[in-house]
Amino acid sequence: MWTVKVVGLGLVALSLSLEVLVWVVRRRRPKNILNEVLFFPSEITCTEAIFTPSLHSCLCTLPHGVETSFSRLLCHILSTSSSLDLCVFAFSNMDLCRAVLALHNRGVVVRILTDKDYAAITGSQIGVLRKAGICVRCGVKTVYMHHKFVVIDGRLLINGSLNWTVTAVQSNMENVLITEVPKLVQPFIKEFHRLWEQSDPSAYLRSAFHYFYSNFTFYLLLIITVCPCSFVICLPLRSGNVLTC
Amino acid sequence: MWTVKVVGLGLVALSLSLEVLVWVVRRRRPKNILNEVLFFPSEITCTEAIFTPSLHSCLCTLPHGVETSFSRLLCHILSTSSSLDLCVFAFSNMDLCRAVLALHNRGVVVRILTDKDYAAITGSQIGVLRKAGICVRCGVKTVYMHHKFVVIDGRLLINGSLNWTVTAVQSNMENVLITEVPKLVQPFIKEFHRLWEQSDPSAYLRSAFHYFYSNFTFYLLLIITVCPCSFVICLPLRSGNVLTC
Repeated sequence: MWTVKVVGLGLVALSLSLEVLVWVVRRRRPKNILNEVLFFPSEITCTEAIFTPSLHSCLCTLPHGVETSFSRLLCHILSTSSSLDLCVFAFSNMDLCRAVLALHNRGVVVRILTDKDYAAITGSQIGVLRKAGICVRCGVKTVYMHHKFVVIDGRLLINGSLNWTVTAVQSNMENVLITEVPKLVQPFIKEFHRLWEQSDPSAYLRSAFHYFYSNFTFYLLLIITVCPCSFVICLPLRSGNVLTC
Repeated sequence: MWTVKVVGLGLVALSLSLEVLVWVVRRRRPKNILNEVLFFPSEITCTEAIFTPSLHSCLCTLPHGVETSFSRLLCHILSTSSSLDLCVFAFSNMDLCRAVLALHNRGVVVRILTDKDYAAITGSQIGVLRKAGICVRCGVKTVYMHHKFVVIDGRLLINGSLNWTVTAVQSNMENVLITEVPKLVQPFIKEFHRLWEQSDPSAYLRSAFHYFYSNFTFYLLLIITVCPCSFVICLPLRSGNVLTC
């Protein structure tokens, strides 16, 4: 009886150890974190099937059913389910604009930060996005807002050298890095938040008003001092006694 | 005696399981993979101490001993021990040029790929690097070589929106992503190799010669056909019978 008990105890200990082992292995197994790199220029192909997957055939002359860097990029953008924070220098690519509009119509919260000079150039899609009701903010400083990154659903980062233009996608040598590594994604979320707050029009209007208000006494004293002085100086000139340039 | 054997066996099984458990945990522990993000513009500080760590004091008026995004970037570049593969659109920053020259003088294999138009603009440091004996190649195509990435020692990737210019470092809103994640680094190594081979001057001279040589018969036939024809056409015009524009 004693032997049976001891053997049983040994087996229980062994199976328990194995259970713990399996649990630890499962727990420590690295999750499937997405890491992908795309290079451009990308082949020009038909993107209709990406926008409307139910479409059976398209009559355009472009190649169909080909996976390219651009189609991969579009798929990642269209996979957004809740929020898309885009910070891009130049945005003139109509396919990417269509993707962002599709997300907006689907109820995704889209926020766009862009460069104020490039937002106004011919071909920019920023006006189209604004008209559709998407919240767009421009950098307030005189420097370039040169980022080209997107944060999707607060978990996926798309970053690289690629501006959202047709030339960048179809002609230039460019790269796009796609990652879910939290140590890389989190700083971009923070930076987007910082730049978004900094570019809030109401905030910088308030700050401009505050600046003027805090210097109001100075301006008032300046006016009070300068006006009588200029009157005193100009009076003899007017009366024709002295003529100076 | 039987009981002692069973208990002993149970204990051995238990300790073996624990050993395996510890081994598995250690093996599956994620290695310390570097992942870092830097944002610009960076504060302008003195970089002398980074280049000459033995320097005790610097008399310049810039702030000293301050860690900035730019000083971090410089430190990563200067940490190179064997190879630096740089693929950058614009390179005019003198501090970064000094860092690359320091690496070259230290025996690091430096290869630079850059845009052919931007390599020739005023202030570009490409000429300085070429004169120092660093191997620089320019894109052969008419499109922009718009990348801004570096691969250090075939293990560390530096990528982002930052061109290697003073404006980008000190004024613009930019980002730099630094990672050792192999799935992100490896594609850039391959792409650099591909672009490097593509930009080999001897390769495209050979290809141009091959193109001309393969079309030699065509050009010869063209000359043989066109010359007598033009002679036949021009003769009556010369003799003044017909005058056409």
